[in-house]
Amino acid sequence: MAKEKLHIVKIGGNIIDDSRALQLFLSDLASVKENCLLVHGGGKMATALAKQLGIEAQLVNGRRITDSEMLKVVVMVYAGLINKQIVAHLQSGGCNAIGLCGADANIIPAVKRAAGAVDYGFAGDISPETIPATTISRLIGDGYTPVIAPITHDGEGQLLNTNADTIASSLAIALSGIFDVYLHFCFEKKGVLKDSDDDDSVIDRIDEQKYAELKRDGTISGGMLPKMDNAFHAISSGVQEVTIGHASSLTGIITQQPHAGTRIIK
Amino acid sequence: MAKEKLHIVKIGGNIIDDSRALQLFLSDLASVKENCLLVHGGGKMATALAKQLGIEAQLVNGRRITDSEMLKVVVMVYAGLINKQIVAHLQSGGCNAIGLCGADANIIPAVKRAAGAVDYGFAGDISPETIPATTISRLIGDGYTPVIAPITHDGEGQLLNTNADTIASSLAIALSGIFDVYLHFCFEKKGVLKDSDDDDSVIDRIDEQKYAELKRDGTISGGMLPKMDNAFHAISSGVQEVTIGHASSLTGIITQQPHAGTRIIK
Repeated sequence: MAKEKLHIVKIGGNIIDDSRALQLFLSDLASVKENCLLVHGGGKMATALAKQLGIEAQLVNGRRITDSEMLKVVVMVYAGLINKQIVAHLQSGGCNAIGLCGADANIIPAVKRAAGAVDYGFAGDISPETIPATTISRLIGDGYTPVIAPITHDGEGQLLNTNADTIASSLAIALSGIFDVYLHFCFEKKGVLKDSDDDDSVIDRIDEQKYAELKRDGTISGGMLPKMDNAFHAISSGVQEVTIGHASSLTGIITQQPHAGTRIIK
Repeated sequence: MAKEKLHIVKIGGNIIDDSRALQLFLSDLASVKENCLLVHGGGKMATALAKQLGIEAQLVNGRRITDSEMLKVVVMVYAGLINKQIVAHLQSGGCNAIGLCGADANIIPAVKRAAGAVDYGFAGDISPETIPATTISRLIGDGYTPVIAPITHDGEGQLLNTNADTIASSLAIALSGIFDVYLHFCFEKKGVLKDSDDDDSVIDRIDEQKYAELKRDGTISGGMLPKMDNAFHAISSGVQEVTIGHASSLTGIITQQPHAGTRIIK
């Protein structure tokens, strides 16, 4: 029997910070008729709230150091305010959203990252193998659109902070045994750009060979590298396709219209 | 066919503020073998956070006035931090908790309270009739213990703040068509006291006639009155029994041991 399709959509922080763009994106998502699951990032709200509370945000290599005070802030902002605002908006559009973090129904078990050269604090590392895919597929089968905040737990009562891109790709891999999974990273750019100064220079498709070229000539660098590595890891682990594109192109991305984002293929 | 039992437990704010008492209570809850659903209040954390952020908390007749800034705070604290900390703790005790607010899966539709003599702001009024009992019973049937934060929504994208006692009794009434519902209000007192200065003067049982007497002679007054009215409304609307007791007596309350709280009966 052919598997059903599942779209796993990751929405990035810059869109979350732009309430108009977020609302348009959520309205598009609510109108998708196929199975969907949304993973959201955090945006600048957590950093702003921490600052107001006198907690200093620390980043090492673009990753947040999560001490116990910062953990409280990200749980409040990610699993509380952002998650529930997204759910309420999707519900208003007729989409039966259910907002969860990784502790809820134990959907994303994690392990606290061991302190090495850097102590990342309450950061949770996850693996597709330990994600209970049938629990999540049953929620989807019951007609829910899970909306997942990037907070996990260690199974011993400790909440942890986990990168939302990693959650999206791990869920995609874990669920690829049950669904034909299409993973979409939506953010504030139209896709992978040939020329970083030209927002319209989107590269339509990238396979492994092309990726090697684009890395060599410096077209892809910086923050895009872990996203691309994540994407290739996902498609080599059972995910059908990964798209990187603008949040405003969600409908085009999901219906695979030409020039709607960059498609990462085998 | 006999209905299954469902225990709906409301845990009050003073216990939530006492992390040791909360952990003991949650460990007891995790060990309950029968169907459970937990509703939690907010405690002082929201007020403290609002103060830190320079938002002034306003109360009229013991009810919080929820302006848009205060709404963000209660969503963060109730549906975020408190809800997820409770879920992580229950999960660590082997209880398959799933943390939800009223917007999730649309489990508690609400209506924004119209401004009258007092404008309560983003306060949500609810009714047992509009609660989708089968949605919640399916989650319980699937083996989950729902953990519900006192945040609701209007179905048009607006989150709202709703009293946790009201949520607990409305859920109890709504679910009494499907389950034999036992509603337990757990807080920092041993029950309804004959003598407010003597914590051991717990009244074992109160029926309507006794309640009328206790109101007349002033034994029950103040903040206990709405709790009692809620309780009698629940048992006259299909709920089997309501107990009011100390959070540390949860096991005794659930197994109906003598002197474990005050039992409100028809």
